[in-house]
Amino acid sequence: MNRKSIQKKRASVLVIHGPNLNLLGTREPDKYGNITLDEINNNIRLRADELDIDVKIFQSNIEGEIVNSIQEAIGSVDGIVINAAGYTHTSVAIRDALLAVNIPTVEVHISNIHAREEFRHHSFIAPVCIGQIAGFGINSYLLAMDALIAAIKKM
Amino acid sequence: MNRKSIQKKRASVLVIHGPNLNLLGTREPDKYGNITLDEINNNIRLRADELDIDVKIFQSNIEGEIVNSIQEAIGSVDGIVINAAGYTHTSVAIRDALLAVNIPTVEVHISNIHAREEFRHHSFIAPVCIGQIAGFGINSYLLAMDALIAAIKKM
Amino acid sequence: MNRKSIQKKRASVLVIHGPNLNLLGTREPDKYGNITLDEINNNIRLRADELDIDVKIFQSNIEGEIVNSIQEAIGSVDGIVINAAGYTHTSVAIRDALLAVNIPTVEVHISNIHAREEFRHHSFIAPVCIGQIAGFGINSYLLAMDALIAAIKKM
Amino acid sequence: MNRKSIQKKRASVLVIHGPNLNLLGTREPDKYGNITLDEINNNIRLRADELDIDVKIFQSNIEGEIVNSIQEAIGSVDGIVINAAGYTHTSVAIRDALLAVNIPTVEVHISNIHAREEFRHHSFIAPVCIGQIAGFGINSYLLAMDALIAAIKKM
Amino acid sequence: MNRKSIQKKRASVLVIHGPNLNLLGTREPDKYGNITLDEINNNIRLRADELDIDVKIFQSNIEGEIVNSIQEAIGSVDGIVINAAGYTHTSVAIRDALLAVNIPTVEVHISNIHAREEFRHHSFIAPVCIGQIAGFGINSYLLAMDALIAAIKKM
Amino acid sequence: MNRKSIQKKRASVLVIHGPNLNLLGTREPDKYGNITLDEINNNIRLRADELDIDVKIFQSNIEGEIVNSIQEAIGSVDGIVINAAGYTHTSVAIRDALLAVNIPTVEVHISNIHAREEFRHHSFIAPVCIGQIAGFGINSYLLAMDALIAAIKKM
Amino acid sequence: MNRKSIQKKRASVLVIHGPNLNLLGTREPDKYGNITLDEINNNIRLRADELDIDVKIFQSNIEGEIVNSIQEAIGSVDGIVINAAGYTHTSVAIRDALLAVNIPTVEVHISNIHAREEFRHHSFIAPVCIGQIAGFGINSYLLAMDALIAAIKKM
Amino acid sequence: MNRKSIQKKRASVLVIHGPNLNLLGTREPDKYGNITLDEINNNIRLRADELDIDVKIFQSNIEGEIVNSIQEAIGSVDGIVINAAGYTHTSVAIRDALLAVNIPTVEVHISNIHAREEFRHHSFIAPVCIGQIAGFGINSYLLAMDALIAAIKKM
Amino acid sequence: MNRKSIQKKRASVLVIHGPNLNLLGTREPDKYGNITLDEINNNIRLRADELDIDVKIFQSNIEGEIVNSIQEAIGSVDGIVINAAGYTHTSVAIRDALLAVNIPTVEVHISNIHAREEFRHHSFIAPVCIGQIAGFGINSYLLAMDALIAAIKKM
Amino acid sequence: MNRKSIQKKRASVLVIHGPNLNLLGTREPDKYGNITLDEINNNIRLRADELDIDVKIFQSNIEGEIVNSIQEAIGSVDGIVINAAGYTHTSVAIRDALLAVNIPTVEVHISNIHAREEFRHHSFIAPVCIGQIAGFGINSYLLAMDALIAAIKKM
Amino acid sequence: MNRKSIQKKRASVLVIHGPNLNLLGTREPDKYGNITLDEINNNIRLRADELDIDVKIFQSNIEGEIVNSIQEAIGSVDGIVINAAGYTHTSVAIRDALLAVNIPTVEVHISNIHAREEFRHHSFIAPVCIGQIAGFGINSYLLAMDALIAAIKKM
Amino acid sequence: MNRKSIQKKRASVLVIHGPNLNLLGTREPDKYGNITLDEINNNIRLRADELDIDVKIFQSNIEGEIVNSIQEAIGSVDGIVINAAGYTHTSVAIRDALLAVNIPTVEVHISNIHAREEFRHHSFIAPVCIGQIAGFGINSYLLAMDALIAAIKKM
Repeated sequence: MNRKSIQKKRASVLVIHGPNLNLLGTREPDKYGNITLDEINNNIRLRADELDIDVKIFQSNIEGEIVNSIQEAIGSVDGIVINAAGYTHTSVAIRDALLAVNIPTVEVHISNIHAREEFRHHSFIAPVCIGQIAGFGINSYLLAMDALIAAIKKM
Repeated sequence: MNRKSIQKKRASVLVIHGPNLNLLGTREPDKYGNITLDEINNNIRLRADELDIDVKIFQSNIEGEIVNSIQEAIGSVDGIVINAAGYTHTSVAIRDALLAVNIPTVEVHISNIHAREEFRHHSFIAPVCIGQIAGFGINSYLLAMDALIAAIKKM
Repeated sequence: MNRKSIQKKRASVLVIHGPNLNLLGTREPDKYGNITLDEINNNIRLRADELDIDVKIFQSNIEGEIVNSIQEAIGSVDGIVINAAGYTHTSVAIRDALLAVNIPTVEVHISNIHAREEFRHHSFIAPVCIGQIAGFGINSYLLAMDALIAAIKKM
Repeated sequence: MNRKSIQKKRASVLVIHGPNLNLLGTREPDKYGNITLDEINNNIRLRADELDIDVKIFQSNIEGEIVNSIQEAIGSVDGIVINAAGYTHTSVAIRDALLAVNIPTVEVHISNIHAREEFRHHSFIAPVCIGQIAGFGINSYLLAMDALIAAIKKM
Repeated sequence: MNRKSIQKKRASVLVIHGPNLNLLGTREPDKYGNITLDEINNNIRLRADELDIDVKIFQSNIEGEIVNSIQEAIGSVDGIVINAAGYTHTSVAIRDALLAVNIPTVEVHISNIHAREEFRHHSFIAPVCIGQIAGFGINSYLLAMDALIAAIKKM
Repeated sequence: MNRKSIQKKRASVLVIHGPNLNLLGTREPDKYGNITLDEINNNIRLRADELDIDVKIFQSNIEGEIVNSIQEAIGSVDGIVINAAGYTHTSVAIRDALLAVNIPTVEVHISNIHAREEFRHHSFIAPVCIGQIAGFGINSYLLAMDALIAAIKKM
Repeated sequence: MNRKSIQKKRASVLVIHGPNLNLLGTREPDKYGNITLDEINNNIRLRADELDIDVKIFQSNIEGEIVNSIQEAIGSVDGIVINAAGYTHTSVAIRDALLAVNIPTVEVHISNIHAREEFRHHSFIAPVCIGQIAGFGINSYLLAMDALIAAIKKM
Repeated sequence: MNRKSIQKKRASVLVIHGPNLNLLGTREPDKYGNITLDEINNNIRLRADELDIDVKIFQSNIEGEIVNSIQEAIGSVDGIVINAAGYTHTSVAIRDALLAVNIPTVEVHISNIHAREEFRHHSFIAPVCIGQIAGFGINSYLLAMDALIAAIKKM
Repeated sequence: MNRKSIQKKRASVLVIHGPNLNLLGTREPDKYGNITLDEINNNIRLRADELDIDVKIFQSNIEGEIVNSIQEAIGSVDGIVINAAGYTHTSVAIRDALLAVNIPTVEVHISNIHAREEFRHHSFIAPVCIGQIAGFGINSYLLAMDALIAAIKKM
Repeated sequence: MNRKSIQKKRASVLVIHGPNLNLLGTREPDKYGNITLDEINNNIRLRADELDIDVKIFQSNIEGEIVNSIQEAIGSVDGIVINAAGYTHTSVAIRDALLAVNIPTVEVHISNIHAREEFRHHSFIAPVCIGQIAGFGINSYLLAMDALIAAIKKM
Repeated sequence: MNRKSIQKKRASVLVIHGPNLNLLGTREPDKYGNITLDEINNNIRLRADELDIDVKIFQSNIEGEIVNSIQEAIGSVDGIVINAAGYTHTSVAIRDALLAVNIPTVEVHISNIHAREEFRHHSFIAPVCIGQIAGFGINSYLLAMDALIAAIKKM
Repeated sequence: MNRKSIQKKRASVLVIHGPNLNLLGTREPDKYGNITLDEINNNIRLRADELDIDVKIFQSNIEGEIVNSIQEAIGSVDGIVINAAGYTHTSVAIRDALLAVNIPTVEVHISNIHAREEFRHHSFIAPVCIGQIAGFGINSYLLAMDALIAAIKKM
């Protein structure tokens, strides 16, 4: 299936939430706000509608399941938005999965990781993504969807 | 449920055993002794009886399942004793789970990690715990239970 | 002037372009594309119109002039979008200026700095910003404007 | 069961493929070639026949499942060939599992990890193996099987 | 005197308090609580009674006097509990003293040193001890006494 | 002009304020207090009168203009008091300018840079100065003038 | 005794000289000049008279005695001037003592430690002081007394 | 304008002197000799005549003005000789300017930077130049002109 | 001579033994076994016969002679097997020789260098080889020959 | 023989080529060009004639022979041009030889070592030379001869 | 007293034993042998007789007392032999004392500190001594006395 | 031949001088004195006579020849005194040779390497020797011979 035919059908995006993001809204509200993951996902779906794209959402606390979900995206997804949370800083496996599937990906973070502990400044994921968006709360996801779709359209 | 009501009912503690601890008794006996995990768990349960508390015990080799077990502790557990084993030194995800659930936690190690390889000296878990107990064999768990209950009572 | 009165009038945003960005369109097109700074600025102004805000645009190759422009923003600007380019990685002075004026700021980069030389991974600016957006070409600026306005509205 | 009796029966080897290796043949062909994991496994089985040994093959993207598979090898396997892929550089848990089961193990890599990014030069696994074979494509596995069987015979 | 005869008589433990611990109760109460050193020592003596052991308590602000007290313990003491405070992170001399006298020792810290400044994470003492207990306030001492006596009994 | 003749005429001192110090009084009052740069300069001039010396005051946000002002001091100034602010930690050019003009210089900081972020602990300027005074608010300048004049008199 | 009553009586300052400063005047005159410690102390007492304060002076070569002298200052001293000499770079114990007594302190050095060996650039003491004055010979002490009294008055 | 036509007209070279080089002849004569910048420039012009090329000379103490001068060289200059002095070791902005204009450049240093302080060994400029010439006094410039013209002719 | 013609004639391999390998069999038998270099070379020649290739064997304790032997391999050798021993970790010259001759090379080590001192983990040679085989005693050489011939055949 | 008499006779220069430079012209032409060492040496001799000096040329792949050639230069040579190639980054012995003979020396590199791997940025040789010339291909040697003769004449 | 008059009278040497050396003979006999400090001191006195010199011997576990003993050596001692034991690696104060008294000193160690833990490789003392002798058991002291006397005679 | 029979015949010692030591007496006299290598060797032979031992002396500038000389010592020499000079800090090959031959060895240095450049503080040789003697000029060799013979006698 070539790129032209992709652009004819509705684009499809996979949003991946990493470990502990299922607790959002209950967890450290000064860093992450009070919005729950369900509310975030609703916002993501609304934005998908506005962008006229399909969206799949996946959350797991297990590194390897995130690897699995990335692999399964081959052929069915035009782009990935990933918040790998704690695995951002430690997972070569997720990096390698993104390298392998070669699907345009945007890394997001709810908090500004550059303003937190030193070990959160380095990302194994970002170097294999189009780019990184960090610090805008739930809006990081929506901005990432905008950025991803715009990038895909230009390819 | 406020703190007073907690203290009226029996306190409940979750003990988490990380990767490879299920092999205890067979593994490197000069470092970890000959006692099996079952025997350790029996000792943990005996100590729980002496302390008049409930205890749940969980073991997994999978980082994300340990994250899951920590998350599920919300609302049902008053404290956690965790021996994250190999994940102690590499897991930001477990650290973030403990941060998120905000349940008093004590880190234990069977061996004296400060007397082993350099990479075992650093713990991602300890900075988000009440404290760390390392080096006392199976007794590390029992001391941790004592320490945890004493700490909870003072809160 | 309190926050309420700010929200009554049109918000105003300052966009700062750091050193060498005036050469955009001629410079390393594989990293930065063919669009010139004038075209970028036109896009920025269009997005400002869509967002119903005022926008001021400033470019300088001189670190201290960027400091000056940040200082002059006090009282007249509700938010800053800054691409400090080469000064991102070396300027404590620009960081201190942002700290001092305490105006909500978003850091942008056209290229994905996390995928380039090691010395470009560290930013002195990001820790004092709301967040960072990197890697989306000219769109990084437009996403930053969206992110900034959304953040200001929530304050 | 003593070593003599082992040598009477057919030796048995466990081959472990780490994360993303299931994508082989589709993934970065300039680094890993076009051969799929199925074809590799066929080659492994052929070589097992030539060596007159039994072989079990396991692949997982989940760190803890690899730990599990190593643990389950106790008593049923005479040697392990492991390509831990991305977990090579980050997993203390897999290292500890190999230490615990104390089964002769050979580490393999399809690509020459010493010629890639700095973070791929260090292996947590190699120091607890007999040795490391890296850079020979699919042949790395076959060489590792030869090396492992020769080493077991000498013990 | 052999080990059996030791176990017949009451065991004797030396508790060493390092620099500034004489100020406890007045010093940074958010880190160390309001209990004075005298009160701690009373608790230590009570626990000694419960454990049916003799206890000697020593405090000094002078590194070399702590070395002296460790040396003088030869022949008269069965175990040591040491909180070397600031010397924990800088004293090779105390480490060497513990190495030389070869008496079972437990390191304690009132605060969780792993959650404080980077330079407090490393201990010169811990690698030559049975283990380390840190973070449980005054209770760290009592847990250490329990741990030490249990360890001595098993030797 | 030899040193004797210098001591006959009134000594002259140049005070250099680096980037963002023009914002003093508005900027991070918990670190720098509420006094404005004008008020500081008035205090500097009063102290100059008490010391019976001439004083020139220069502020710039531009690294190279600070280099210029140091160069222009040759022949007209007997000593320099410099608060290079953010350039303290990054400017080899200012260091080289001070080396080149070889005028006795005292480095000052309003806040205690040794108690702030790691990157503020190192100064490129201090090693080519007589000494450093840091942490005393506006008084750092006045102490520096005293120190400088006393040092010049002894030369 | 509250702050008001302190300001009614004469303030009292403790000056601490660390190891080897008793040799001043004989030691490396190119770094420290020819003035003896007695002469320095006379100058300190003269300045105390000018400032209308009481001054106590203490010198020791023993780290722990310096800790002792800091502890004994509680309740009798309004401020401390400390030149910890060689212990500046190695003593966590002195740092902890200053933290514990919580008396306003100024760190001084006769030579410019920032222009000497790398290991003399870092101070364990400075981060818990008001500020640091280094490089002005004997005058460092007098400036420190001025700075300390001015700081105390503002509290 | 293609390369052939360039070679028909006289080649043109821009020589950039960085911060403090305007003080040459007065500054640290043991490192830089007694020759003033005017004399150097005369020598540069003489060499330009011998090489039958045009030469423009620019000096600034301001990092951003050096960036400006590099940018303005586009289209009018065939090569650049740059002594960035103190900015050599700190300026990503100048590096980026050279990258952007893509004009053949030679880095020069009057002193042997490899024999001086550690921080002078690293150059941000050299990796984007043809080469580096350091240590030959004023002659470094003349050698650089020879080297540059020879390199341009071969392109 | 093109590759086809090479494959018609018998392939030729150069085996290089680095410093101290001539002592094999006498040296640290727990690390290297009891086999002498002559016996190893006999095994190498046997394997060469089995592989139907020519083999040349060279040993030297002198770094530059190893460089020489690599250079002399140009045109006469189809592949190299090198155990650079101590020079593995220190020789840029041997690395450069291999780069220059551009002959397919396999690095071998008798012991598992990844399980020994830290300084033996890094190889200057491996990044310019096809791959590395380490830890299999004398068998490392035989595996390397197999690996090399297989790799050459695929080119 | 004093310096005057040296200047009366023709000066003599030793050119040293380090390991692998004998392969020039065949080796990595994109880095080093197509010119062979013989051609380079012819150019060196031509330049020597133009400079009216004697030249000796030495090449060796053996570190110690380069040391020997430097030692033998005592008394017979007025200056050295050295391209130590791979030994540049690893040889304290060559550095010490140059220190010992105390003959003015210029370091050259054909490629721009500052634009290559990190380990090629550091030179043990450069700090004991007059200066370094790197990146100009064969012309590096000729520039070095010019620079050396000019430097000798000024001594 | 000038050097000549020193040589007329018997030379006098101070031998300083640092912390824990008083335990020699009981402490880690595999590292330090079975000889007690008294026996060592007898050997030292015998060697002093053979060398026809006076010897004073001092041992302390207190860093500052060692500083005191060094200071008291001024005027009465011609040389010092010091085994600072654990303080070797941590004491700037002892280094400064030796710098201050400027008496020829030899550092000794009973064990080979270069073959032990990394932190024992660095000495703060050695750089201010004539030299270091390490690894020869009790003989290290006797060799140091020989070396010291020989060095003093040559001065 | 067992140790007893060795002690019956005269012991034999090999003294190895590393690179550039053949220049002694001409080289940096402030570091190494004026004595030539011949004079040193005469002193070594005289001391050998006094010690009633045979001595062989070897000097080479070539690392591998030093390796050779160590290997040839097997069976004919009872101990080695080695001054590896520049190779001390870079040669794993010499370290491995000493490990392999397992002959008691003493490392010597004429100058105090601990007081020189940072890179001279680390020795690859010392950890495999009995001990190190550094800083006593020619006497370092004589002390080393004494130390070596005394150590051999005790074995």
